[in-house]
Amino acid sequence: MKIVCSRNSLLSGLNIVSKAVPNKTTMSILECILLETDKDGLTLMSNDMELGIETRVEARIETPGAVCLNAAIFFDIVRKLPENDVTIETDASLKTVISCERAVFRLMGRSNEEFSYLPDIEKFDPVILSQLTLKDLVRQTIFSVSVNDNNKVMTGELLEVNGDRLKMISLDGHRVSIRNVELKNSYPAKKAIIPGKALGEIAKILDDSEDAEVMIYITGKHCIFEFGETIVVSRLIDGEFFKIEQLLSTDYETKLTIRKKEFIECIDRAILLVREGDKKPVVLDVQDEELRLRMNSNMGSMNDELSISKQGKDIQIGFNPRFLIDVLRVIDDEEIDVYMVNQKAPCFIKDSAESYIYMILPVNLPME
Amino acid sequence: MKIVCSRNSLLSGLNIVSKAVPNKTTMSILECILLETDKDGLTLMSNDMELGIETRVEARIETPGAVCLNAAIFFDIVRKLPENDVTIETDASLKTVISCERAVFRLMGRSNEEFSYLPDIEKFDPVILSQLTLKDLVRQTIFSVSVNDNNKVMTGELLEVNGDRLKMISLDGHRVSIRNVELKNSYPAKKAIIPGKALGEIAKILDDSEDAEVMIYITGKHCIFEFGETIVVSRLIDGEFFKIEQLLSTDYETKLTIRKKEFIECIDRAILLVREGDKKPVVLDVQDEELRLRMNSNMGSMNDELSISKQGKDIQIGFNPRFLIDVLRVIDDEEIDVYMVNQKAPCFIKDSAESYIYMILPVNLPME
Repeated sequence: MKIVCSRNSLLSGLNIVSKAVPNKTTMSILECILLETDKDGLTLMSNDMELGIETRVEARIETPGAVCLNAAIFFDIVRKLPENDVTIETDASLKTVISCERAVFRLMGRSNEEFSYLPDIEKFDPVILSQLTLKDLVRQTIFSVSVNDNNKVMTGELLEVNGDRLKMISLDGHRVSIRNVELKNSYPAKKAIIPGKALGEIAKILDDSEDAEVMIYITGKHCIFEFGETIVVSRLIDGEFFKIEQLLSTDYETKLTIRKKEFIECIDRAILLVREGDKKPVVLDVQDEELRLRMNSNMGSMNDELSISKQGKDIQIGFNPRFLIDVLRVIDDEEIDVYMVNQKAPCFIKDSAESYIYMILPVNLPME
Repeated sequence: MKIVCSRNSLLSGLNIVSKAVPNKTTMSILECILLETDKDGLTLMSNDMELGIETRVEARIETPGAVCLNAAIFFDIVRKLPENDVTIETDASLKTVISCERAVFRLMGRSNEEFSYLPDIEKFDPVILSQLTLKDLVRQTIFSVSVNDNNKVMTGELLEVNGDRLKMISLDGHRVSIRNVELKNSYPAKKAIIPGKALGEIAKILDDSEDAEVMIYITGKHCIFEFGETIVVSRLIDGEFFKIEQLLSTDYETKLTIRKKEFIECIDRAILLVREGDKKPVVLDVQDEELRLRMNSNMGSMNDELSISKQGKDIQIGFNPRFLIDVLRVIDDEEIDVYMVNQKAPCFIKDSAESYIYMILPVNLPME
């Protein structure tokens, strides 16, 4: 194989495919990126067996071929090369020479026969939305995906399409995050549970522009995201997602309207007194149009007050302050509505159109 | 004690004194910052027994007094307070209330009687230079201070004043860094070995402006840095510093003049192939007006070339690439001069005025 391409295009491509290279693995071929030519250019591919990514780089092909190179070293080298044309040449024994201006690197490559190519999946009926929307949806829900949970389903997010509505749901044992968006077109009902880790990596390489679109194909075992010159294939998580509809009560005894920025600042201050792993709640004490916050820990105590609007009863209720912050940080509205029933019942933060619904379980109030 | 001060002034003061709060200590009082009033305002003080810092904050004193507060928590709280006036009030039992707008924190303070005040040292004959110059001197030499060396003297830097010259020297087993600057005034000869750690912390809080000055007082056991509203006291390291003059030969067989930016880029690329702890040298092979660099490691190999100016013999010599990079990064000149004798002898990078002299020992060339 011998190809010539620009250092910057190659770097962009590597930045994309490196997202599916595992940090730790016992199979050293998974640490490699496949470079393979076709008549139009160069394909880069990576695959950690859960998530696979392929992207294309414009290149002049002088001799067709393929080679696998250690992703970390190859990426580091390209990053440090001058911004000029890069030549990559491999001989029959897979010795690979990477040269740019007067810098020449020699690495030992591996055969593409060892590489796990992405599965060949028939693609039809894509769901289409803007890359930015998908990126936002992930950012706004991924924080409540369970990490390392015994229940595999909780380590993924439900992506559900119904007509012109797309819904994403994540949950752990203490909270549920739901986002709804409207699609331009209408689609037959379909759903999939996508691993949270895959969604996190995909969000990193999606474009920030409204105009750029992503096509999502859901098949029996995989979900394929196609955007720009890139194809991402994620395995799906087997199983049934939780029926969360029954949790979503719309009854409430207290409704608060709070200015988000001030609320975040108060909770941020309360968190100062909580060490990692400590379970001290922030107590919200609503009396008339006043929200009083307090936090007591071994380190000291904090009290704060916010002016709010209230409908319904006064209430005193405790929360893990980090769960509140996680939700508040991903809501774009300047004012938020908080719905509560009593000290033991789930609390909801949602907008009137229900484009977002966040449920958080309260924690027991400390004895004082 | 009851005082009122602006949150921003308090934050600046805490940023300064926090540099002498140890990360780990068995003496919990060292983790505290002392707040003490006098008739004009508030003094903040910290002391890890090697390094002590005191700075002043403008404040309205309502009731004079003193209290010690845990540095980490207090700093975090002030950072998160609104940008407004902060009131700090302590009662007889040292319960401390920190309030700002509607936020109120309560912490348990400790008595100033437990605190180790800075030693009361008679100050005379300060050496005066600009804060920026001192900051630069530290940055340009601190990388070759030995860390955790058995030889205590090597964990410090020699600061030596002679007439209107100030010299700073650091060294580890493989290299020596020397910087010389001219002072505005002339002083009697004096010298001190200052702990590298103290210098590193002082450099962080020195001003970036040419105009602001620092006064340095050297006494038998301490070095005092006075600048702005801040006083830093560092213990000195006992002992005799190395006589490095005998190492500083001016004979050479080869002199290279190299464009620094290109040289850094080449060495940066060579380092890609060296893992932390690995001792692979970068080999410099000088032939006529060409400097060829090569690096061979288990990961692969690199070759690169630079056009240079040369006086004297061709040479082939190996270096730890990180030692070269450390020096190149702190030299401001666009071209550097490198002086060498042979493969085994120290190499010097210095300017003609000897405002800087860096010595690096070569490493054995690998068998190839």
